[in-house]
Amino acid sequence: MNGAESLVRSLLAGGVDVCFTNPGTSEMHFVAALDHVPGMRCSLCLFEGGVTGAADGYYRIAGKPAATLLHLGPGLANGASNLHNARKARSGIVNIVGEHARDHIAHDAPLTSDIEGLARPVSDWVRTSRSAKEVGRDGATAITVARTAPGQVATLILPGDTAWNDGGAIVEAEPAAVPTIVDAPTVSAAAKAVRDARKPAVLLGGSGVHEAQLTAAGRIAEATGADLIAEWANARMERGAGRVPIRRIPYVVDLAVAMLAPYDTIILVGARPPVAFFAYPDKPSVLTAPGTRFVTLASSADDTLAALTSLADALDAPGADVVAKAPLARPELPSGPLNHETLAAVIGHHIPDNAIIVDESISIGRDFFARTETSAPHTWINNLGGSIGYGLPVATGAAMAAPDRKVIALEGDGSAMYTVQSLWTLARENLDVTVIIFANRAYEILRGELANVGVQNPGPRAIDMMSLTRPNLGWLDLARGMGVTGQSVQDCEGLSAALAAGIAHEGPYLIEAVI
Amino acid sequence: MNGAESLVRSLLAGGVDVCFTNPGTSEMHFVAALDHVPGMRCSLCLFEGGVTGAADGYYRIAGKPAATLLHLGPGLANGASNLHNARKARSGIVNIVGEHARDHIAHDAPLTSDIEGLARPVSDWVRTSRSAKEVGRDGATAITVARTAPGQVATLILPGDTAWNDGGAIVEAEPAAVPTIVDAPTVSAAAKAVRDARKPAVLLGGSGVHEAQLTAAGRIAEATGADLIAEWANARMERGAGRVPIRRIPYVVDLAVAMLAPYDTIILVGARPPVAFFAYPDKPSVLTAPGTRFVTLASSADDTLAALTSLADALDAPGADVVAKAPLARPELPSGPLNHETLAAVIGHHIPDNAIIVDESISIGRDFFARTETSAPHTWINNLGGSIGYGLPVATGAAMAAPDRKVIALEGDGSAMYTVQSLWTLARENLDVTVIIFANRAYEILRGELANVGVQNPGPRAIDMMSLTRPNLGWLDLARGMGVTGQSVQDCEGLSAALAAGIAHEGPYLIEAVI
Repeated sequence: MNGAESLVRSLLAGGVDVCFTNPGTSEMHFVAALDHVPGMRCSLCLFEGGVTGAADGYYRIAGKPAATLLHLGPGLANGASNLHNARKARSGIVNIVGEHARDHIAHDAPLTSDIEGLARPVSDWVRTSRSAKEVGRDGATAITVARTAPGQVATLILPGDTAWNDGGAIVEAEPAAVPTIVDAPTVSAAAKAVRDARKPAVLLGGSGVHEAQLTAAGRIAEATGADLIAEWANARMERGAGRVPIRRIPYVVDLAVAMLAPYDTIILVGARPPVAFFAYPDKPSVLTAPGTRFVTLASSADDTLAALTSLADALDAPGADVVAKAPLARPELPSGPLNHETLAAVIGHHIPDNAIIVDESISIGRDFFARTETSAPHTWINNLGGSIGYGLPVATGAAMAAPDRKVIALEGDGSAMYTVQSLWTLARENLDVTVIIFANRAYEILRGELANVGVQNPGPRAIDMMSLTRPNLGWLDLARGMGVTGQSVQDCEGLSAALAAGIAHEGPYLIEAVI
Repeated sequence: MNGAESLVRSLLAGGVDVCFTNPGTSEMHFVAALDHVPGMRCSLCLFEGGVTGAADGYYRIAGKPAATLLHLGPGLANGASNLHNARKARSGIVNIVGEHARDHIAHDAPLTSDIEGLARPVSDWVRTSRSAKEVGRDGATAITVARTAPGQVATLILPGDTAWNDGGAIVEAEPAAVPTIVDAPTVSAAAKAVRDARKPAVLLGGSGVHEAQLTAAGRIAEATGADLIAEWANARMERGAGRVPIRRIPYVVDLAVAMLAPYDTIILVGARPPVAFFAYPDKPSVLTAPGTRFVTLASSADDTLAALTSLADALDAPGADVVAKAPLARPELPSGPLNHETLAAVIGHHIPDNAIIVDESISIGRDFFARTETSAPHTWINNLGGSIGYGLPVATGAAMAAPDRKVIALEGDGSAMYTVQSLWTLARENLDVTVIIFANRAYEILRGELANVGVQNPGPRAIDMMSLTRPNLGWLDLARGMGVTGQSVQDCEGLSAALAAGIAHEGPYLIEAVI
């Protein structure tokens, strides 16, 4: 058995049975092994950002890592921005990168590059296999690292000779570690902090915004009057009818500061003290009031459900049955022009039961979250790393992980272009994803940001750097070119009909909503 | 004057007056400065690989660096594979990357990453500005580095506060250094080596394949019987009717070894000893015969024209007037089906005078180079870094640098998808680029490579990783979606008519050649 085959068999032994790929010559032995070893579902992406983003989305929904297959340093570089996003979301990925055979590297061939150097800034763990004999072991270690709570990016670099030489051995990864249970003194300290607080809040992140955790947090709120708050961006939040509603910290610094100002004590559960997304002259980086007391109940690696339940019990909180949950109250369908308010209502009306919403709507989506609180129960996915172009790839991976759930990708037109090649993979795999492109034909958020830095009347050169006109993007043409059907709409009635059609359609469907 | 404005003014003072951009929030002060300081031509790309590849193409034709503007670490990462290619091509680029304000970095905001770490593997020089006062000086240094012969990637990281604070100063870059003239002993040693050789060759790379250098090399060939050979990939080769013809070292290892086997002595002029693109089991990495003697006449940083002229003179070579040059003999137009032979003939027939050919045709293009030797005089551009997706961006930059020349981009369908967003920039800037997409609907080269590693009858999983069917890409739809017109052809007659139409059209035009 050569090294490549031992790696494929070790991945399968470790429960990694999905591989998003964009291979090249140096990965051909791995492709050959994928071919003759049954059991791995392979999905081709036409750009590497699609590969890594899909692995991120897969982890968020499946709760276990997928593998990637990338071609040397440049392939890794093309996938690096979505690895950055995955790492910030704490998604576990077994990120496999081909490398020249070790004897060839010294010759500085065209594709030779410092792969480990490129990998380190976007990985929690990097290893270059040294021989065919060690590849199985390295693969098993990568799986163990990737599924170390709450999830890590493990990059395994596979020189050609370690793939093609004989001597490979199948190694099974250690079972995934169970998340740590926080100890009693930590729970007691948090309980005392809540009781002592003038105005407490519980700030939830990571697994803290899953359904059972929110219910446990709701018991704490009922018992103490503490407010429940989520971070601005969440890897996977469960919400809608029947779930405990929760506000997110706003993106805009002034709004975030105003929201957080009242709290003298913040209990952290899988979350970090909130900071501004960007720095601005004369605005703070820290969003909480000076002197705010932070008490960590559970880190993102801990068992947040056990921690919240213990805290609720320590506070003599009532049972889960009294916790207030969102009713089912779909927004009324509006009519007329599309804007951030009416878009939110139409989408909130149509979200189907158990849908997965991947939100990369940026500026146009500022009302979406609030207006979907009482929609049908659903999962809401955000970008935690801030590198745009995460949406279509993450939707790809989420749909692979949950073939029985409808995925809705909310995409700004600017954002969607970065990884537009993912539409092709949606078509090839016939993934059940409805994509809504908000065609405002601008990097709209930058217009606001330019004003924030003091430019009130931008001239033509600045406007050109933020507008997507000249020419307008034709989203139906782009979709058709990659095998995805859809329609273009310009008002609420059109969007509502298109969304109903997309949701009824089994497979990918793209709606261009011209704003 | 704030730091951002001092940087823009220092760039202009140093002759850098083109900037390819994909900015974000942290770069808004730079955008504001670009807006109110006249003189910088700014071109927006919808993906960062388009930005960096365009800067590469601009340098190859203009012979001077352009600037980029990228958004933080992920923006740099998205542009890194084309920086890798640019660096291998020795293209000078002033690569500007925004960064959070320095006080904000410690807060580990979503977009925080190790930008210097990401930059180092794809840069010859990396600096993070420390204050507004130093930004102008750092920009001037970056220009000096970028234009250090034969061209370097200089990455300047610009924290937000260094852009928005006052105290900026305009600094003019030092004049570009003149390439080194090789000394007399080096020339004498090369002359002796040629005379002593049983079978000598002159291997030309870098500026060694420009028109005057090839003519000087032709004098050496006339005098000594030495063969002239070019590297497999060349940043900018001048060829066609009236230029000295030259063979390239083949990509396929066995063919390259056979071609190089006869030579006991190889004179290097801007070239390196040839190595295989990839490693294969049981094939060599070094392509020349054991014991081949390499004598370096000139490195890629030296004045290759002076070196070749001195060597020709030392060998008492005849004057340039006796050097054999390619006649003008356009290939006959073939008819019927498109294949690698007929495609080469149709393209060779239509190349217009002084055109720039950007070749990313990969497997289908194996006859293109030979069949265009006697076409109208033109420039031929290759990918030196091997990371596919270089073609459309490089064509963008080349067309920006030479608005009076027709650019023809020869693109595999697989390759073109990596940076397909560049079509939009071609449309926005109305660049005079005719794109031919060779739609063989496969990563065809990988099929051969899989056979090379011993898989003769690939199964469905391997075939799926190399085929671009299910669905077929619709290139006219993709082009139309980004504002580019064109047509689809299926035979020689169709391609010939379409190519004539594309060349007559002033602006971007896309031809889908279905193979």
